[in-house]
Amino acid sequence: MTTTTDYERNMILSSQEYNVVGTRPIRHDGADKVTGRALYGADFDTAGLLHGKVLRSPHAHANIVSIDTSAAEALPGVMAVVTFADFPQVSDGTVDFGEEITTVHDLQSNILARHKVLYKGHAVAAVAATNAHIAEEAVKLIDVEYETLPSVMTVQDAMVDGAPILHESMRTNELGATVDDKPSNVAQHFQHVKGDIDAGFGEADVIVEREFNTVTVHQGYIEPHAASAFWNTDGRLHIWCSTQGAFPARDATAEVLRLPVSQVRVTPMEIGGGFGGKIPVYLEPVAAMLSKKSGRAVKLVMSRADVFEASGPTCGSNMKVKIGAKHDGTITAMQSYLAFEAGAYAGSPVGAGAQCVFAAYDVENAVIDGYDVVVNKPKTAAYRAPGAPNAAFACEQAVDELAIKLGMDPIDLRLKNASVEGTRRPDGTVFPRIGCVEVLEAMKNHPHYSAPLGENQGRGVAIGYWFNVGFESAVNIAVNADGTITLVEGSTDIGGSRASIAMQAAEVLGIPAESVRPSVVDTDSVGFTAVTGGSRTTYATGWAAYDAAMDVKQKMIERAATIWDVDVDSIEMENGVLQSASDPELNMSFSDLAAQMGGTGGPIVGTASRNAGGMGVGGGSFAGNIVDVEVDPATGKTEVARFTVVQDAGKAIHPSYVEGQMQGGSVQGIGWALNEEYYMTDDGTMANSTLLDYRMPTSLDLPMIDTVIVEVPSDHPFGVRGVGEANIVPPTPAIANAIHSATNIRMERLPMSPVAIMEETWKQS
Amino acid sequence: MTTTTDYERNMILSSQEYNVVGTRPIRHDGADKVTGRALYGADFDTAGLLHGKVLRSPHAHANIVSIDTSAAEALPGVMAVVTFADFPQVSDGTVDFGEEITTVHDLQSNILARHKVLYKGHAVAAVAATNAHIAEEAVKLIDVEYETLPSVMTVQDAMVDGAPILHESMRTNELGATVDDKPSNVAQHFQHVKGDIDAGFGEADVIVEREFNTVTVHQGYIEPHAASAFWNTDGRLHIWCSTQGAFPARDATAEVLRLPVSQVRVTPMEIGGGFGGKIPVYLEPVAAMLSKKSGRAVKLVMSRADVFEASGPTCGSNMKVKIGAKHDGTITAMQSYLAFEAGAYAGSPVGAGAQCVFAAYDVENAVIDGYDVVVNKPKTAAYRAPGAPNAAFACEQAVDELAIKLGMDPIDLRLKNASVEGTRRPDGTVFPRIGCVEVLEAMKNHPHYSAPLGENQGRGVAIGYWFNVGFESAVNIAVNADGTITLVEGSTDIGGSRASIAMQAAEVLGIPAESVRPSVVDTDSVGFTAVTGGSRTTYATGWAAYDAAMDVKQKMIERAATIWDVDVDSIEMENGVLQSASDPELNMSFSDLAAQMGGTGGPIVGTASRNAGGMGVGGGSFAGNIVDVEVDPATGKTEVARFTVVQDAGKAIHPSYVEGQMQGGSVQGIGWALNEEYYMTDDGTMANSTLLDYRMPTSLDLPMIDTVIVEVPSDHPFGVRGVGEANIVPPTPAIANAIHSATNIRMERLPMSPVAIMEETWKQS
Repeated sequence: MTTTTDYERNMILSSQEYNVVGTRPIRHDGADKVTGRALYGADFDTAGLLHGKVLRSPHAHANIVSIDTSAAEALPGVMAVVTFADFPQVSDGTVDFGEEITTVHDLQSNILARHKVLYKGHAVAAVAATNAHIAEEAVKLIDVEYETLPSVMTVQDAMVDGAPILHESMRTNELGATVDDKPSNVAQHFQHVKGDIDAGFGEADVIVEREFNTVTVHQGYIEPHAASAFWNTDGRLHIWCSTQGAFPARDATAEVLRLPVSQVRVTPMEIGGGFGGKIPVYLEPVAAMLSKKSGRAVKLVMSRADVFEASGPTCGSNMKVKIGAKHDGTITAMQSYLAFEAGAYAGSPVGAGAQCVFAAYDVENAVIDGYDVVVNKPKTAAYRAPGAPNAAFACEQAVDELAIKLGMDPIDLRLKNASVEGTRRPDGTVFPRIGCVEVLEAMKNHPHYSAPLGENQGRGVAIGYWFNVGFESAVNIAVNADGTITLVEGSTDIGGSRASIAMQAAEVLGIPAESVRPSVVDTDSVGFTAVTGGSRTTYATGWAAYDAAMDVKQKMIERAATIWDVDVDSIEMENGVLQSASDPELNMSFSDLAAQMGGTGGPIVGTASRNAGGMGVGGGSFAGNIVDVEVDPATGKTEVARFTVVQDAGKAIHPSYVEGQMQGGSVQGIGWALNEEYYMTDDGTMANSTLLDYRMPTSLDLPMIDTVIVEVPSDHPFGVRGVGEANIVPPTPAIANAIHSATNIRMERLPMSPVAIMEETWKQS
Repeated sequence: MTTTTDYERNMILSSQEYNVVGTRPIRHDGADKVTGRALYGADFDTAGLLHGKVLRSPHAHANIVSIDTSAAEALPGVMAVVTFADFPQVSDGTVDFGEEITTVHDLQSNILARHKVLYKGHAVAAVAATNAHIAEEAVKLIDVEYETLPSVMTVQDAMVDGAPILHESMRTNELGATVDDKPSNVAQHFQHVKGDIDAGFGEADVIVEREFNTVTVHQGYIEPHAASAFWNTDGRLHIWCSTQGAFPARDATAEVLRLPVSQVRVTPMEIGGGFGGKIPVYLEPVAAMLSKKSGRAVKLVMSRADVFEASGPTCGSNMKVKIGAKHDGTITAMQSYLAFEAGAYAGSPVGAGAQCVFAAYDVENAVIDGYDVVVNKPKTAAYRAPGAPNAAFACEQAVDELAIKLGMDPIDLRLKNASVEGTRRPDGTVFPRIGCVEVLEAMKNHPHYSAPLGENQGRGVAIGYWFNVGFESAVNIAVNADGTITLVEGSTDIGGSRASIAMQAAEVLGIPAESVRPSVVDTDSVGFTAVTGGSRTTYATGWAAYDAAMDVKQKMIERAATIWDVDVDSIEMENGVLQSASDPELNMSFSDLAAQMGGTGGPIVGTASRNAGGMGVGGGSFAGNIVDVEVDPATGKTEVARFTVVQDAGKAIHPSYVEGQMQGGSVQGIGWALNEEYYMTDDGTMANSTLLDYRMPTSLDLPMIDTVIVEVPSDHPFGVRGVGEANIVPPTPAIANAIHSATNIRMERLPMSPVAIMEETWKQS
């Protein structure tokens, strides 16, 4: 077990003196963003640009009998119409796109429906016209004959015998083997086993067991999807889009269109939020085909309803959790059943959910069953720690119930069973150094935890986990003659990563953060860089920036050695000053050398690329919440009265942006907990596909989100842990636990809206 | 002396087998260029863009008494007005901008006049307005009170005592020392001396002596200057312009505006020709100041008249040449006097002219006097081998006359005295390996040289020289998973250098030219790269691409060693195939490894930067012409009947673009020889400032320009010599010599228009 000594050691390590790391400079792209100069996806324009519109299915499930585009094609101003038939036809080869594995066939079919539509909003055809109004008229002229089919909206309904089947060819992968006898909506069932679960429950003095349900929610990024494409006469395709990763967007578009990746160039525009939902491509290949057919550049922009109905929300889920413990609080067994909606095509985040569900607990005996289930809703995409918030909603409420049954403080119970370096998770992963204990200790020591509560108020806590993803990043650095540097990266900047990456290079070179000019460039202009997602960017691209800066530093030392005619090894570069050990007078600053480099061998440039590993590099990040709620007994309305988030950042490069991530994840978690949901009608239609009706929290709904950064260094040179995601994991159970504390009602479903709370109240009374 | 053996050796060397170098792939930017998709300077657009207009001086020389901008500022739609007073004031510190040395003060004053105007068209003020029409109206409302001064248009007039003085503070630098007694229009007089000139002429049996004059001509690039600027609220200035060098444009703009270079980002648009004239900045700082004042992006575009009157043409000149030789053809002494117009501010190309004038001749005794003289015309800029065509017009006619007097074949006379490796020029430079003899031998062996001539026809030959400039270049390369690479460079592509640079990387890596995706990026996105000019780009940036590709190659070998678990030194990579010496079965292609790199350590990226040296690296390039003309005795009109250009390319990377450069330089030389001139009226106004009246050759005026590429390798890894400039040097004297051959008239001035030839005919008759 980690002790206070370890905690103190961390505090010493993380207080290591840096000049740039840990400070809060103004972000490099700030002026562009606050003055409205930054160009987002829909801001793209070029000569002769056509405007496109996508025709979407009005049915949740239907066969496409025929599509007649002739009337649309005949409308003056229409330059091209495309359907699935325009895609190059493919076999069902499996393709790996980093976080998602899917088939090209599924990828194509989700972009434009083939044979059948699988959800309301499924794209069926698209038009490019000389203006948006003509395009809108034209899609109405496309005559699609449908044969409607019964639809299925939940995993429970989808898994019963006789359920409507989405894919006649789908067979369940049952614990690694294909079940060949019949089509199914269950794409996969996997199981993680550790120890002996029956023996574990046998040892238990107390057992809790619960079933939980969550519904579809959306990331709610403020900028709708937008993509423009120009397919040049030399066969090269140029795409401008709002994406979390220009390279993954390039590769996916190339895959769908069966092009070599070098034929596709993606220029990432600024991005107005993504949270995982802007990893997949939706419009890009369609705009490309419209451009190929019309010979013109084509822009497609989603409406808000399109975003809700036809991008990738995260999954609803059905979950069961069973936990056993001894009277002293030692947890002896943990079991969970996780059935997650994939949406219309296989690939829910149940795998990640299964890895995270018990990640905070060092338990001897565990079984986790995961089910990936297709339903007639949009194909799910990643949403901030995808799968983990669902799993935590179940697990952390069961742990809360267990603490109550044991009469233990809920943080003490967690501390007694907390994962530490060396803990093996049920999925087999062994943790390197992690900050689970340190986060729990910081929560326990926080004044919020012992503050008094008011009437109708309750307090809940929860902890959550998310890995860091590693993957590939490349960075180039060039030194300017005025002692500044330019830094070229391939990582889309969503939450301030221009700053956090630039600062790491600045620290290495001993120059101010303001002396770095970071640029996020297109896919032809930097080495392959994976998606901005998986909490990887400040960790992996930052590490590449560190390496590139080290490359520059070494070249500056070599250049100084040439200028001074001394041995390279005699020169040190510290805090931006080069010093020769052989002669105290031989010293110069970074700027001095930069000014001389042109005439002493040419420009100094550095480069680095890195495969920072796969899932779970650096140990990942734990986040915990202390939440006070006040529940109105008359209406069931829950007010969040006080909210504290504690997270292990490893080392906070730019604390303001770490705090921003912590606050942002917390707010999304609060929305998910209390209000947000896809409200589906019986015919499979989303009834609330506007931001007025899909109720996300506003500043009026929220208290100040207090943040506590814990710093337990990872293997990264500065100890960085990605902080983008873990913070969305604990809010739903922490709020549920607080509601229970206030009302004695155990909420087994999301959202915990006034209606839901009143329904549970009436059940109990 | 070099012998045929050397010539044969060169042919062997240059026929070395390459897979990519020496082939003729389609240029990478071809589709964009031929379909009109490429975006040039004036194509820039952005939200809220303002349109600017520059007010220009109607006088060739005047003091500015006052400028009243109030009426212009009051015009609705006008957003900003600027004059020199808006520039940050500077002391007269000398600043080095690579090819030009000038002061910040001069640089500023040429961009917006301070106190006085020095040429018709000199910028005085500028306006930004919501549209171009308002801007045009507004400049008319600016009230400038001038006190006109007598002007001076030629070096002869400018150098006499009592001539109108342009700069009261200017003192002559006379052989390195300042002449302090009085202001002068002569900025500098320098002298190169080799051997004993009097003794040399004493040894001579035959002496020729001539005086020559040339007038101002313009590069005539098809795209007028255009620059847009946005000065952001965070102090960063972004410029989009048509420029030969984004980095020099950045540095000059920063210097004029007294900003650190890192505050300025220049995005180079595609460029519609430059030829040296798009190295300086004219509009960029003005657009920047208008943007700063208005808070909006501002675009400025020159009209064709603006381009002629207010950009940088090349100089008129007054030259004297004296050459002595023995009866056997041995040249014993060469002397020249070169007085070149600088235009309104010091800095003519007389220095380069003096280095080139006798470069083809290995002479024991020589004196060259150079004079840099200001006149009331636009400040000259570089124009393709700046200074060398003027000098060659003088020298090569004198050599022709000498051959006639000696009764020698003019090529034999040149071969007898030709510069070779080890020859020391009068300026002190010692030639490395050069191709002067090989070019002359190729001319002599060409069938054109012995073809019969028709009535009124004559044949002339001449040789010309231009150095290669080295300077700084940086290149980044990233490998794509499909076995292609992206290549990022900072060199503006004027004549196909995307291809010639990409091909050098492809050759190193053993992949096709088509597998390289070259990008010319902005100044924030690659290491410092000097101007595209000085025949440096394929040589220096190509060498950086070679180095970057070697970096990638080494990393691929290291990666293969990791994958195969063998020693790095045991792996060879040839023609794109990696092979381990330890096991014949361990081999894979570039593409095989590219596909694996993501999972075996991450992206493979390479980088290189190089200071390829200063003037004259690699020995430079010689070019020679054989020209047949037919002169109409009735009108004096000269028809070019046949034209052959021979040039040493070292190694032609992409022969089509080498031939294109040779043809292009020849055509500009023909225009300069026969038609082009600034026709100046007495009041210092250019009377022919349109492309209808400034008569450049069209395809109807020209024969096919036959090209012969000679390949004498330089020190570059593939032996490249820059080919952009030397080809413009011999046409004017070759045509003059051909006219003499046809008419017996020795033309001592340019252009050799029908009027000029008739005037000389009448003088002789």
